[in-house]
Amino acid sequence: MTITVTVVVGNPKPQSRTRTVAETLVAKLLEPGSYDLDVIDLADHTAEIFAWPSEQMAALNARVASSDLAVFASPTYKATYTGLLKAFLDRYPANGLAGVTAIPVLTGADLTHSMGPTVNLAPLLVELGAIVPGRGFYFVAGQMDHLDEIVGAAAEEYAANLARLASVAAVTQGVSA
Amino acid sequence: MTITVTVVVGNPKPQSRTRTVAETLVAKLLEPGSYDLDVIDLADHTAEIFAWPSEQMAALNARVASSDLAVFASPTYKATYTGLLKAFLDRYPANGLAGVTAIPVLTGADLTHSMGPTVNLAPLLVELGAIVPGRGFYFVAGQMDHLDEIVGAAAEEYAANLARLASVAAVTQGVSA
Amino acid sequence: MTITVTVVVGNPKPQSRTRTVAETLVAKLLEPGSYDLDVIDLADHTAEIFAWPSEQMAALNARVASSDLAVFASPTYKATYTGLLKAFLDRYPANGLAGVTAIPVLTGADLTHSMGPTVNLAPLLVELGAIVPGRGFYFVAGQMDHLDEIVGAAAEEYAANLARLASVAAVTQGVSA
Amino acid sequence: MTITVTVVVGNPKPQSRTRTVAETLVAKLLEPGSYDLDVIDLADHTAEIFAWPSEQMAALNARVASSDLAVFASPTYKATYTGLLKAFLDRYPANGLAGVTAIPVLTGADLTHSMGPTVNLAPLLVELGAIVPGRGFYFVAGQMDHLDEIVGAAAEEYAANLARLASVAAVTQGVSA
Repeated sequence: MTITVTVVVGNPKPQSRTRTVAETLVAKLLEPGSYDLDVIDLADHTAEIFAWPSEQMAALNARVASSDLAVFASPTYKATYTGLLKAFLDRYPANGLAGVTAIPVLTGADLTHSMGPTVNLAPLLVELGAIVPGRGFYFVAGQMDHLDEIVGAAAEEYAANLARLASVAAVTQGVSA
Repeated sequence: MTITVTVVVGNPKPQSRTRTVAETLVAKLLEPGSYDLDVIDLADHTAEIFAWPSEQMAALNARVASSDLAVFASPTYKATYTGLLKAFLDRYPANGLAGVTAIPVLTGADLTHSMGPTVNLAPLLVELGAIVPGRGFYFVAGQMDHLDEIVGAAAEEYAANLARLASVAAVTQGVSA
Repeated sequence: MTITVTVVVGNPKPQSRTRTVAETLVAKLLEPGSYDLDVIDLADHTAEIFAWPSEQMAALNARVASSDLAVFASPTYKATYTGLLKAFLDRYPANGLAGVTAIPVLTGADLTHSMGPTVNLAPLLVELGAIVPGRGFYFVAGQMDHLDEIVGAAAEEYAANLARLASVAAVTQGVSA
Repeated sequence: MTITVTVVVGNPKPQSRTRTVAETLVAKLLEPGSYDLDVIDLADHTAEIFAWPSEQMAALNARVASSDLAVFASPTYKATYTGLLKAFLDRYPANGLAGVTAIPVLTGADLTHSMGPTVNLAPLLVELGAIVPGRGFYFVAGQMDHLDEIVGAAAEEYAANLARLASVAAVTQGVSA
């Protein structure tokens, strides 16, 4: 089986460390060869983000909404996700990410805003119908030297969470039948 | 397979409608016969909730922590969960609900506090290591006549979410291998 | 004495009802003739909002930061403020709204997201150093017929709050001396 | 003029560092002799906190509600205020702290939960009608050696904020008239 995965990066500057963190998380979480990966760097789309309608943006929105797993990654601005990421998500109708497994990722300068992914970005994704399998992930940018180790530990926790969720899934009505 | 399920009710008054809502959600979500259910009505334990140590409370905490699924249900007080529910959760060490699939439920008088389960109760459970498979569930108390229908729709959404999560779980590293 | 007041409107569509609500709140809250009012409709600046640096945006940011009172008004998108408003606020450095008295205003279709101004927009403004004198204000868009009455009641509450705060201000160290 | 000030401490253990932090904040913020101070250490009232009705608790609630300024201080449990503090606040009716200037204080082991006072405790107090003049205050418990300096800086910021609010208060309708 192959699943579709999308990384959405909300940094107004392209090719950011935030993007690297998100891509590393996907690589550590999933079996190689088990997924198709798409990366949307919103920095490439700022000119179009407030255009309405926009075929280009609609196509991006559709790709994320049809993913099995999406990682939403942003630097921490004012203790929360960027306006750029929010502007992208604002384009969805209510429930526009229904059924997408979503991992919220924020990068920050120090621990001060550690709660951001869980109290700000996760509820936003959940409002759109996405499902967040655990804590949001906060990465201190100065720790890039330990990226593999830190992201690896987070990936292990998500994998363990997903396995636990699957055991509940097995006995829900209309699923186990 | 049989899973263990616990309902924790944070209403200072016992046998509340909040408890009924939570129990109904479990009944609608899971296949009959697929689970063992335990209900902890915290109203029965207010005298002990601030005792430290307490064998009685420790036993309750352990039962919830070892559940596969736990529903945490509370009336909405001041836009969020009750102090009674929080006092129970405060007894856990860090990560004390690791791996428990948790559904946050708040009941309220009208729609004003609809965001409470998602922005207040869900992050609290996640902080403890629990995994919330979707939105928190908010139930308007005046709708008890439509309990089956409203809770049924919520249960269907959780079941669908869990099925989607299971499809991601299948390709995580160390799980699919 | 004259104070400076700014209304910042975060609706991607110009001349919105959200703007009307915010302007009405200012008119009801302050004595006529006691203030200079500036309205920034961010819909007029979407093309420039992600430009960096930008003299035009820097000038707008400076006008708000030097205000005595600023009303930040946005429609509710995904249970919170718009990406457009956030993108404007993202341009500030840490503490960029220090000392500005700020009133958060969200308009929404129904009561479902009533908590948004208090749990989402207010903390964002406070993170920037602004001071929010009470609840955030949530206005149900279908109530435009009762605009004067509803906004008038909110204005009275803010005025009462400000008077109470002034009585505390009078005895702080270095102020009363 | 003399104002009434109350410190409410939500630590289940009495005479905590959290209490010391809150009392220091009051001493640094206000002019000596300008206020009457009352300290409520909720650890002394755990046996009564879920009793209903309770004359003892009603008297405590009334003292806080009639204060000009109240400091609500709690250790950080699970990223937010304690269940004990919440249980005390749950005893108020809607709007029970109307017009009280309130400062939220959380103490914690490290910076991880720095956002707690602003995103969790402040909105709770505001929901009750209190007015929070700026950020919530987070104090890292290991910094007790620098208590005077750190709390002093926070007090200066609150004093400056209150002065700014007073300048807006001066031109509100029905107040300046």
